[in-house]
Amino acid sequence: MKPLILISNDDGYLAKGIRCLTEMLRPLGEIVVVAPDRPRSAAGCSITSTVPISAKMVRKEEGMTVYACTGTPADCTKLALSQYVDRTPDIVVSGINHGTNATINEHYSGTVSITKEGAMHGIPSVAFSLCDFDEDADFNPMTSYVQQIVRMVLEKGLPYGSLLNVNFPPVSPYKGIKICKMALGVWKDEFTRHETYYNKDYYWLGGVNIDRDPNDTLNDNWALDQGYVAITPIKIDETDYSLMEEMAGWNL
Amino acid sequence: MKPLILISNDDGYLAKGIRCLTEMLRPLGEIVVVAPDRPRSAAGCSITSTVPISAKMVRKEEGMTVYACTGTPADCTKLALSQYVDRTPDIVVSGINHGTNATINEHYSGTVSITKEGAMHGIPSVAFSLCDFDEDADFNPMTSYVQQIVRMVLEKGLPYGSLLNVNFPPVSPYKGIKICKMALGVWKDEFTRHETYYNKDYYWLGGVNIDRDPNDTLNDNWALDQGYVAITPIKIDETDYSLMEEMAGWNL
Repeated sequence: MKPLILISNDDGYLAKGIRCLTEMLRPLGEIVVVAPDRPRSAAGCSITSTVPISAKMVRKEEGMTVYACTGTPADCTKLALSQYVDRTPDIVVSGINHGTNATINEHYSGTVSITKEGAMHGIPSVAFSLCDFDEDADFNPMTSYVQQIVRMVLEKGLPYGSLLNVNFPPVSPYKGIKICKMALGVWKDEFTRHETYYNKDYYWLGGVNIDRDPNDTLNDNWALDQGYVAITPIKIDETDYSLMEEMAGWNL
Repeated sequence: MKPLILISNDDGYLAKGIRCLTEMLRPLGEIVVVAPDRPRSAAGCSITSTVPISAKMVRKEEGMTVYACTGTPADCTKLALSQYVDRTPDIVVSGINHGTNATINEHYSGTVSITKEGAMHGIPSVAFSLCDFDEDADFNPMTSYVQQIVRMVLEKGLPYGSLLNVNFPPVSPYKGIKICKMALGVWKDEFTRHETYYNKDYYWLGGVNIDRDPNDTLNDNWALDQGYVAITPIKIDETDYSLMEEMAGWNL
């Protein structure tokens, strides 16, 4: 039986990134896509609990079925696993995101949330992003890398609760692959202030991502700056075990 | 100078939980609240980038100012730090959430996202939740615990990039405090299917949280089940360092 590959994204099922990803992976298995019916960037791991969600089939061909879903990326993954696959997928793949999900951006990412959902369900999961926000970005140079990474994960699996967050630099040819850690940092100067016609303030989110250790050659940010494809292994267990030990000495 | 305490939540500025939290912490410092103008449960770390956001002052008293913001919990925290404090807060406190944020729920939590934002900005941050979804839940038994935990964090600080996720069991008196790790697991049977008047399927999110190691006495879930207050130290660095090492041997 061919591997079952569940695909989703956060840019919506019509985005070029997910259409390219689907074509790249069709030679590798049977494809089910359940993706948001509209752009849902920066959705984080948000889920929908105060209104119901639904999905409709928008395309069906040999070896591929595509559903558009009213929910968030995490909702799409949950609903797919619950309703739209006839067996547990062999892999969950998300993207290809239009824009970076490296560094702390991973926390805000709908693309990565899909793979966190997959990892919670014990399914090997990989998120792909290209550091180019252009709606018509060129994803072709990624093809052999994407196929090889998915093949390797299908072959080797991933530990329970872990996933791969893969980011591609904006310019190809790529220098190769680096296995990285998540660069830590913070967004600065995040808002620009504007005024409405009636002189009320409003704010647009933007800003600059400041890397805490820009010279750390293990950082995903560093690898991308140097032209490497950055694979950052992520785990859903966010426990700070060293702080656990330290707090044993607190007077609580 | 009194400590500056920034408060937010995901149930909205009118929720009982945040009003109780604010009263508990007024004796400890100067309070600025920037909270969503409506309920935003399960917002995860989502942020708003396709429309602008705004906030308005809804209350000002000696030592306390309250703003209601159109954004998500993470937006509220970002906007507060950018626009509504005159110095860096000494601590970011979120909650008190109506309902649990222990275990993997932490990923979906708007309450915890506020403290992740604080931690990224290098500010000691603590999230408080009561495992009781009742809008009129009784938060009073938490008072001395909340005050003592906040006092300790103000005194000792927290390592950069770490935060405390504190969950209270539904029934008091509490048996004491346990320093815990995040219980891993997954939500099962997550959707109920319904039909519209026109026979289209729609789905409500719900389900059962399955703990992977229910007998692990270090789990936050276990501690809560036993009647303890569970403090789970969390870090924003989600890198899986052991998988990084393992993947060095992959043929990529």
